[in-house]
Amino acid sequence: MDSFACPICRRPYPADVRSLFCPVCGVPLLSAFVPKSPKIRKNRPMGVARYLDFLPLPEFDPDLSLGEGGAPLQSLTRLQHAFGFSGLYAKNEAMNPTGSFKDRGSIIALHLARQLGFETVGTISTGNMAGSTAAYAARAGLRSVIFVKDDTPREKILAAGIHGARVIKVRGNYAALFVKSFEIGRLLSFYFINSVDPYRIEGYKVTSYEIFEQLGGKAPEFLFVPVSSGGHLLGLIRGFRDLKRAGLIGREPRYVGVQARGCAPIARAFERNRETIAPVKRPQTIAHAIANPQPPGGKILLRALASSGGIMTAVGEAEILKAQRALAEYEGIFCDPASATALAAYLQLTRLGRIPTRARSVLVITGSGLKTLGEIDLSALRISEADLSDLPELMTAWK
Amino acid sequence: MDSFACPICRRPYPADVRSLFCPVCGVPLLSAFVPKSPKIRKNRPMGVARYLDFLPLPEFDPDLSLGEGGAPLQSLTRLQHAFGFSGLYAKNEAMNPTGSFKDRGSIIALHLARQLGFETVGTISTGNMAGSTAAYAARAGLRSVIFVKDDTPREKILAAGIHGARVIKVRGNYAALFVKSFEIGRLLSFYFINSVDPYRIEGYKVTSYEIFEQLGGKAPEFLFVPVSSGGHLLGLIRGFRDLKRAGLIGREPRYVGVQARGCAPIARAFERNRETIAPVKRPQTIAHAIANPQPPGGKILLRALASSGGIMTAVGEAEILKAQRALAEYEGIFCDPASATALAAYLQLTRLGRIPTRARSVLVITGSGLKTLGEIDLSALRISEADLSDLPELMTAWK
Repeated sequence: MDSFACPICRRPYPADVRSLFCPVCGVPLLSAFVPKSPKIRKNRPMGVARYLDFLPLPEFDPDLSLGEGGAPLQSLTRLQHAFGFSGLYAKNEAMNPTGSFKDRGSIIALHLARQLGFETVGTISTGNMAGSTAAYAARAGLRSVIFVKDDTPREKILAAGIHGARVIKVRGNYAALFVKSFEIGRLLSFYFINSVDPYRIEGYKVTSYEIFEQLGGKAPEFLFVPVSSGGHLLGLIRGFRDLKRAGLIGREPRYVGVQARGCAPIARAFERNRETIAPVKRPQTIAHAIANPQPPGGKILLRALASSGGIMTAVGEAEILKAQRALAEYEGIFCDPASATALAAYLQLTRLGRIPTRARSVLVITGSGLKTLGEIDLSALRISEADLSDLPELMTAWK
Repeated sequence: MDSFACPICRRPYPADVRSLFCPVCGVPLLSAFVPKSPKIRKNRPMGVARYLDFLPLPEFDPDLSLGEGGAPLQSLTRLQHAFGFSGLYAKNEAMNPTGSFKDRGSIIALHLARQLGFETVGTISTGNMAGSTAAYAARAGLRSVIFVKDDTPREKILAAGIHGARVIKVRGNYAALFVKSFEIGRLLSFYFINSVDPYRIEGYKVTSYEIFEQLGGKAPEFLFVPVSSGGHLLGLIRGFRDLKRAGLIGREPRYVGVQARGCAPIARAFERNRETIAPVKRPQTIAHAIANPQPPGGKILLRALASSGGIMTAVGEAEILKAQRALAEYEGIFCDPASATALAAYLQLTRLGRIPTRARSVLVITGSGLKTLGEIDLSALRISEADLSDLPELMTAWK
């Protein structure tokens, strides 16, 4: 069995998913697992099974899988031609089973839930994690309970509820709910697989291994990742560090964490050279999936970025909408506003000359646009009405 | 360059996407391409590139791809345990880039559009095909025009419009619109990639090759496929016939085409042993993606089924909703109601003893449930509200 460790003070802890924070430093614990001479199992398709040596799992159970992983790394050919840069790719994590990167974490955490004999798992979520946790719990035959904010859109609730999850819209403070969920977990032996769960974070490492292989055995020079709790980028960093330790890459990418300006607690701390995160009072952004006002992984993410020359930046609402449309119109990728922050940040930093326009750069697309249809700017689309009999004339004029 | 042929009278025609129906028989033309000693390119990942020998394409252009193909074949372990059968799998085509099997066809048709030098492609659609065609046109750098019925839900329109497509809500008869679109295509040199386009149908063959490999080099004994225009199942049949001709399988699967009882023109003709399809006046089903009242591929599909011992069946609304929930609750697969008809038919036919409960059966899941959230039966879900302070008590009672 794996053990945990505090990423700040390095103290070791037993792997107990009922106490996931260092009592001394207050930060989330991470897995203490370090792969020993890991080998890529080239006869397995992309996903967990191919990189089993890199993960704290004794084996991969296909009966827990929904086919996560192996998301395409798409060369953004037309976009870069139009904007005058090159070497840009998108890793489209929206193509996971429930439409977001969360599935990478859920599959690993459900392995652990089974190993440890839990009968009930849970999560607190504003969206993607709810559907992912509920779907993987269903596949594993476990009960699930999902706490959501009382103003969570109906669509996100349905996508969890359909899997038989018990969904509770909770009135009250979200940060307090995060703490309360762990209390309930300890009390009732429920495993709350929240955003910075150490096994979730191990799951995100797999994305790094895939990017490395999809680039023909290279790391990106720059990796752009939308940041909410911090867990996703922490996992990606751990993945590339594994590859470096195994001698498969010479240098880590430079990591670029991206937040929306309307809720950018980690980017703000980064700019001001602070080590601690000041909570955001009133998040205001259409990028709801990354609008976390008090990110639990913020502090350790700042440390990880500092030790690798990584940066955090924030982008505005208009830039986000423009980037979302550009990915859809030039590349056929329909992502949510949170994902689009990665392209917005790339355009911002190349314009400012902080990133060369010919560097090998990868944008991590985190979630599908199908889940946030309500946030599309209708005025930018070309939708009209016509009678059948008028079509030939209308089309001739258009041509 | 490929040529076309009438599947009824066998007359050959040049490959001209502006006249896609046999002037004598009135049925859609199919590709005349027959693979000669095709080889599976085992060093390529699943998708078009791996099966290039089986397709009427000189090469695969990754710059047109969005990562379609390679959808998981999931063993339905828990579902079959609960219901007392075995050997059942789901091929989850909802995991394609735009969330439906249509992407398989779009990638092939866009190759042809590029080869033939078209600048504009189009389609008429009630949903999934709109988003797929618009996304692939965007990736290829072509303009797209999408005709939809004037009562098409907003979500489906947005998922096409976001890619820059010109979307026109057309008032008038849908079958007449189908005909009109080809007229406009001929007039203006637009390539209308509609449901029974011969290249679309070639694309669906790839799903058969993947199922064959995912089953360890075997065909299913039974293949369950939701049927709308008939194009999807026609393509799957062509795929398995290719495998048989190449000596890779000894016997084709028995095909089971499924429609919703509220719009079952092909199933009705099949039951009554008719060769022609009577249009349905008023389709009434929640399985909108397969509610085609006048399916253009119906006649040739009936022939193909007759020559292979295949069958058509129809399922009711309650069975569809039950099947949708069972896939979500037991297996973590969230599909649309149209996809769920495949499981509903399996349950119906095994109950009737027409299909053995231990046969190797594959359900083809055709589209994601995220696109039809409005059709979920809320009363069946377990959604409630609570104050933060009441959670521990509430959860203790539940446990």
